[in-house]
Amino acid sequence: MTDFKATKAMFELPEGILYLDGNSLGPLPKAVDARLHQTATQEWGQMLITGWNKAGWMGLPTGLGDRIGRLIGAEEGSVVVGDTLSIKVYQAVASALELNPNRKVVLSDNGNFPSDLYMADGLLRSLGAEYELRVVAPEEVAENITEEIAVLMLTEVDYRTGRMHDMKALTELAHANGVVTVWDLAHSAGAIPVDLAGCNADFAVGCTYKYLNGGPGAPAFIYVAPRLSDRVRPALSGWLGHEAPFAFDLDYRPGSGIERMRVGTPPVLQMAALSAAMDVWDMAEMADVRAKSIELTELFIAKVEATCPGLILASTRDPAQRGSQVSFHFAEGYAAMQALIARGVIGDFRAPDIMRFGFTPLYVDENDVEQAAEILADIITNNLWDQPEYKIRQRVT
Amino acid sequence: MTDFKATKAMFELPEGILYLDGNSLGPLPKAVDARLHQTATQEWGQMLITGWNKAGWMGLPTGLGDRIGRLIGAEEGSVVVGDTLSIKVYQAVASALELNPNRKVVLSDNGNFPSDLYMADGLLRSLGAEYELRVVAPEEVAENITEEIAVLMLTEVDYRTGRMHDMKALTELAHANGVVTVWDLAHSAGAIPVDLAGCNADFAVGCTYKYLNGGPGAPAFIYVAPRLSDRVRPALSGWLGHEAPFAFDLDYRPGSGIERMRVGTPPVLQMAALSAAMDVWDMAEMADVRAKSIELTELFIAKVEATCPGLILASTRDPAQRGSQVSFHFAEGYAAMQALIARGVIGDFRAPDIMRFGFTPLYVDENDVEQAAEILADIITNNLWDQPEYKIRQRVT
Repeated sequence: MTDFKATKAMFELPEGILYLDGNSLGPLPKAVDARLHQTATQEWGQMLITGWNKAGWMGLPTGLGDRIGRLIGAEEGSVVVGDTLSIKVYQAVASALELNPNRKVVLSDNGNFPSDLYMADGLLRSLGAEYELRVVAPEEVAENITEEIAVLMLTEVDYRTGRMHDMKALTELAHANGVVTVWDLAHSAGAIPVDLAGCNADFAVGCTYKYLNGGPGAPAFIYVAPRLSDRVRPALSGWLGHEAPFAFDLDYRPGSGIERMRVGTPPVLQMAALSAAMDVWDMAEMADVRAKSIELTELFIAKVEATCPGLILASTRDPAQRGSQVSFHFAEGYAAMQALIARGVIGDFRAPDIMRFGFTPLYVDENDVEQAAEILADIITNNLWDQPEYKIRQRVT
Repeated sequence: MTDFKATKAMFELPEGILYLDGNSLGPLPKAVDARLHQTATQEWGQMLITGWNKAGWMGLPTGLGDRIGRLIGAEEGSVVVGDTLSIKVYQAVASALELNPNRKVVLSDNGNFPSDLYMADGLLRSLGAEYELRVVAPEEVAENITEEIAVLMLTEVDYRTGRMHDMKALTELAHANGVVTVWDLAHSAGAIPVDLAGCNADFAVGCTYKYLNGGPGAPAFIYVAPRLSDRVRPALSGWLGHEAPFAFDLDYRPGSGIERMRVGTPPVLQMAALSAAMDVWDMAEMADVRAKSIELTELFIAKVEATCPGLILASTRDPAQRGSQVSFHFAEGYAAMQALIARGVIGDFRAPDIMRFGFTPLYVDENDVEQAAEILADIITNNLWDQPEYKIRQRVT
């Protein structure tokens, strides 16, 4: 059994804050500060260039990949960390297309995270007018999986509502139609049990700054099924994916297996932070996290529905079909979220009217959920959101 | 006048080490440790998701871009930091090709860094068989700039020998032939004065972990000439390059100017370290750095040629045509470099036979250069490299 009191104690959680936004940016694991200090002063500072070997920096992308792999049902040696999620989406879709050279359509849905659609769109535009990004409603995905489709690109858990696609069933349907699959696990990794190997997935990508708590701008990861990885000619063929990077050959020869999905020099400081964050995950079992997450989300839904008139559940009601977040439609959701944040309850807002709350058992408990629901009820029932300062939308860039 | 004693004091330099490899990985600026501590504990730890606004994380890529821009003659607002250099090469070449849609050839040279060639090759393969990466010898570049060429992709300073291309002349010749230019400044930024605006350059890219001292895996940068940036449809069209990332539109609309070259979530911890490293550059004038660099490289060449029989200068002899490094051919260069490193002089080896030494006036002085040359002379004249342990090539991956 996972000891959630112990895992909670491993995070730095500011006084007076109820943090329900770990699905956007996880909080600081306490061990990160010392790990960064060590990496900067003992490794970079003392070892200088020799840190690539002596401190094992060069092995961080695959070492961290395996630690993440354990949480998503990936085979040993099938995950590598690097770049951003947008880049990894591009790399996965481009590489998947090469495995299906006679087809020209990438199928996705309008619940996908926009950057995935932007990256695929940019890729397909560059490949030529015969390529098409076909975007359908989430519930229409299955019926659109045909022998015309080259690649199915889906985010398993909807970033706004938490609605889950059935990875196993859709992958099976895709394979029956000769379609290669790319799964985005941004809201899955560390949120719900994922079984890539059991689902026979082809490619998967995800980020590490949400449920995995790797820190702002933590690198992404990519999974390639071992049965495919030696057949893939990677798009974004960078030198660290080369068979012999330090031979400095003029011609590219892909490295072995997942190594070939590496591109450039890995961000060692971010990886040091991620490594400390993964130490917390060593104390957790994904099945326990999922069970606790369902308890917390069910509790929050029940409380909010009982006390917050006007908030309409946007998430799937069946917890088995829902990720580790709960969202509500509320016309004044932007202002209500600002009012909540002013009271120390941090969730986030997603246009046009979604109030979104993430539930992360590693550091959020029942008591937090009850308190957050009470503050939300106060704000809603007393119209406390109805103040000018809460309605001014801040430019984030 | 730049006070190089003062800049040297801003670095953590291990006792007993003479570091002539800052062209591979710059050493640790002393301020980095505290900056990382602050970013982790005060920003990420206390502000959590609100750090994107409150701590200014979202503005780091362009803020750092401008600070680097000052060193490379870029206009304000024309440089943005992010991703790795390999990714930025891909983005620049792909975007440049779109500006020249009727031409299919990318011209480069065999002195370019291999990853640039790999990335361009991967891009062109994906675009179709009519595209070609044409790689000629460095001295044949000019005669190969014709109206057939779409994009000229060159690294200004050769990573092995330090030989410099004439950016101004080649850019002029390129433009006279309707060719778009992409300059890789990996061994230029912080090494030699660069005048992108004055050279009328189109695209440029570079890394920040060499002469800029941003740390292992520090992010790359990309420059787009202001006259082009609003015309470029960026390849790698990620959400943070969108006009309104947080509107979560399904369709991509490029952001204004250089903002559109952003892709995914920026690596905040790496950028915090880079920011501390750029504080050192605030104390330096590029012209002083260049003058001192020439003194140091001339001194080293003179000493080595006088005392190290068998070492043949691989770098250009004319300092005006040479970056901030000096390389020698030596058949037993690998073993000799290992022997040097064992004696505390850190340079590096580049296949097949190049011993490479970087000279970085911010923290390397005449005394260091003289000591390093004496140790090298001892190793060469007494055949101290001729020991089995120096000849075993370590696998770096």
